[in-house]
Amino acid sequence: MNKIILLKKRPFGKPSLSDFEFIREEMPTPKDNELLLKTVYVSVDPYLRGRMNDAKSYIPAFELNKPIQSGIIAEVIDSKHPDFKKGDFVSSNLEWKEYQISNGKGLVKVDENEAKLSSYLGILGMTGLTAYLGLMEIGLPKKGETLVVSGAGGAVGSVVGQIGKLHGCKVVGLTGSDEKVSLLTSKFNFDQAINYKTTSNLKTAIRTACPNGVDIYFDNVGGEISDAVLANINTYARLPVCGAISLYNVTEIQMGPRLQPILLTKSATMRGFIISDFAEKFPEAIKQLTAWLKDDKIAFSETIVKGFDNIPQAFIDLFDGKNKGKMIVEI
Amino acid sequence: MNKIILLKKRPFGKPSLSDFEFIREEMPTPKDNELLLKTVYVSVDPYLRGRMNDAKSYIPAFELNKPIQSGIIAEVIDSKHPDFKKGDFVSSNLEWKEYQISNGKGLVKVDENEAKLSSYLGILGMTGLTAYLGLMEIGLPKKGETLVVSGAGGAVGSVVGQIGKLHGCKVVGLTGSDEKVSLLTSKFNFDQAINYKTTSNLKTAIRTACPNGVDIYFDNVGGEISDAVLANINTYARLPVCGAISLYNVTEIQMGPRLQPILLTKSATMRGFIISDFAEKFPEAIKQLTAWLKDDKIAFSETIVKGFDNIPQAFIDLFDGKNKGKMIVEI
Repeated sequence: MNKIILLKKRPFGKPSLSDFEFIREEMPTPKDNELLLKTVYVSVDPYLRGRMNDAKSYIPAFELNKPIQSGIIAEVIDSKHPDFKKGDFVSSNLEWKEYQISNGKGLVKVDENEAKLSSYLGILGMTGLTAYLGLMEIGLPKKGETLVVSGAGGAVGSVVGQIGKLHGCKVVGLTGSDEKVSLLTSKFNFDQAINYKTTSNLKTAIRTACPNGVDIYFDNVGGEISDAVLANINTYARLPVCGAISLYNVTEIQMGPRLQPILLTKSATMRGFIISDFAEKFPEAIKQLTAWLKDDKIAFSETIVKGFDNIPQAFIDLFDGKNKGKMIVEI
Repeated sequence: MNKIILLKKRPFGKPSLSDFEFIREEMPTPKDNELLLKTVYVSVDPYLRGRMNDAKSYIPAFELNKPIQSGIIAEVIDSKHPDFKKGDFVSSNLEWKEYQISNGKGLVKVDENEAKLSSYLGILGMTGLTAYLGLMEIGLPKKGETLVVSGAGGAVGSVVGQIGKLHGCKVVGLTGSDEKVSLLTSKFNFDQAINYKTTSNLKTAIRTACPNGVDIYFDNVGGEISDAVLANINTYARLPVCGAISLYNVTEIQMGPRLQPILLTKSATMRGFIISDFAEKFPEAIKQLTAWLKDDKIAFSETIVKGFDNIPQAFIDLFDGKNKGKMIVEI
């Protein structure tokens, strides 16, 4: 029997296990021009929370009682499709199923010998592209500038900081544990990192860490952490808004200090983005990321959780910051 | 005797007449390489309010007990400077004095025969440049798009709307009186205008006026009016932040709905600016504005107040929306 995870209820606030339902079905069989895929790695990402709401957003909402989808690496175990053969590995946006049929559309072959398979969901996948293109296209890093990254211990944030360093920026990370602070300054090459949970005055701490002010703020979190950074931005600051994890689970409109006066007096640019905004730049970004990876110029972390049944919990754990870097479920 | 207006106190909240002081001094006399200027027109602008605070901003604060400065058209009435002669008219950032000495630095000669003198403070001055460059460089208008302008009845807003129309946009203005609503749709060529003071649900009113959503929001006001527009923006919307008149006089940090989630889900760009950010584009902008003006493709309004003694009151009246278009004091 094949196992499938459906969205049973739209979460109210933070998601819980009861929002998901496991069902079983007969093992599917590929027809002509189809192939059978076995799920190997599943990416769980904060942005999926948005798709669980019944709200108009940049990507369509998940349907109730239908399988959830996310980035998945799968192995071809049976193929009646001319372009794929048994043993191939592919990456795509697929359904949370142990096994699934595909017509080949949207599948990208990935090479186990070039990089480890899970990296195609992370540093060489959506995570790396988001970090690279958000920083390069909106952040516009210049040598000697100061870059602050929130959610710095996460999959995207840890890569953003390293790319900033490769462009000669001073890089300061904001994160939620002392363990992640250590990781950022050791493994990920950040100049400094601040644990916002144990810092009594974050605004002052950022000012101290960034004596020349903040030129780029790569925002993964929104909320009060971002308020503290915004109080320290320089004239002509660039602020890519990549995520707002602190606001994904809130059920009321969140209030904060109005931003227009700050953006106005600093001639600053705040821009939200989703990675598909820069689709035409993917090949160039992947090329650069692959080169850095081969030259050991960029490190990445993964938190690997094992077992298909643990996908929902791994997703929920994102909102408690239990991941270090990319959260992946290995089946 | 010469009359001068000093900043006596930093306004707390809305400015009042008691924040200003009139003094008299001996008539000044030009030395070699100097000239004597007689003030003819004085521009009073909302942004001057920011300079009256003792706060770090994009332009330095006015000093207490020193003359206030703003855009002024003056006549040369005595010259010992080789580049200027008696009878010349000049435009510059000058002091609120009936007469003043200049060394010629920063003075731009203006031609009475080319356009009426006061227009060099408005449509051919900072006002026109702000409207043109804010819209063209940040708003990036495209044919068929929808442009919403707040503070639409003001000096900048009324020009922004017309430039939007010249680029094929549908243009909707937000303003504070029925008289201005009429003016916008008749004289200034706006497709529609909304009186936000008499509209019970501005968000819905904007949705009705903009059935295809809002692609560009030229923001002169900030605050709740902007919240109502932001609720209606399209994917890839551009939001030049030109002013925040609703927030200039507030004495506490104003709270509003957090913007990051909106910018994120709409891949939208919000950018503050001051006209000097685009200094290298001034000549091209002036050339275009002059051409439109000559071809009667662009109209402008002035509210002319008479008398040097009325400069402070004219400035204060800006915050009650008493001006239609550019507020100018004729001496």
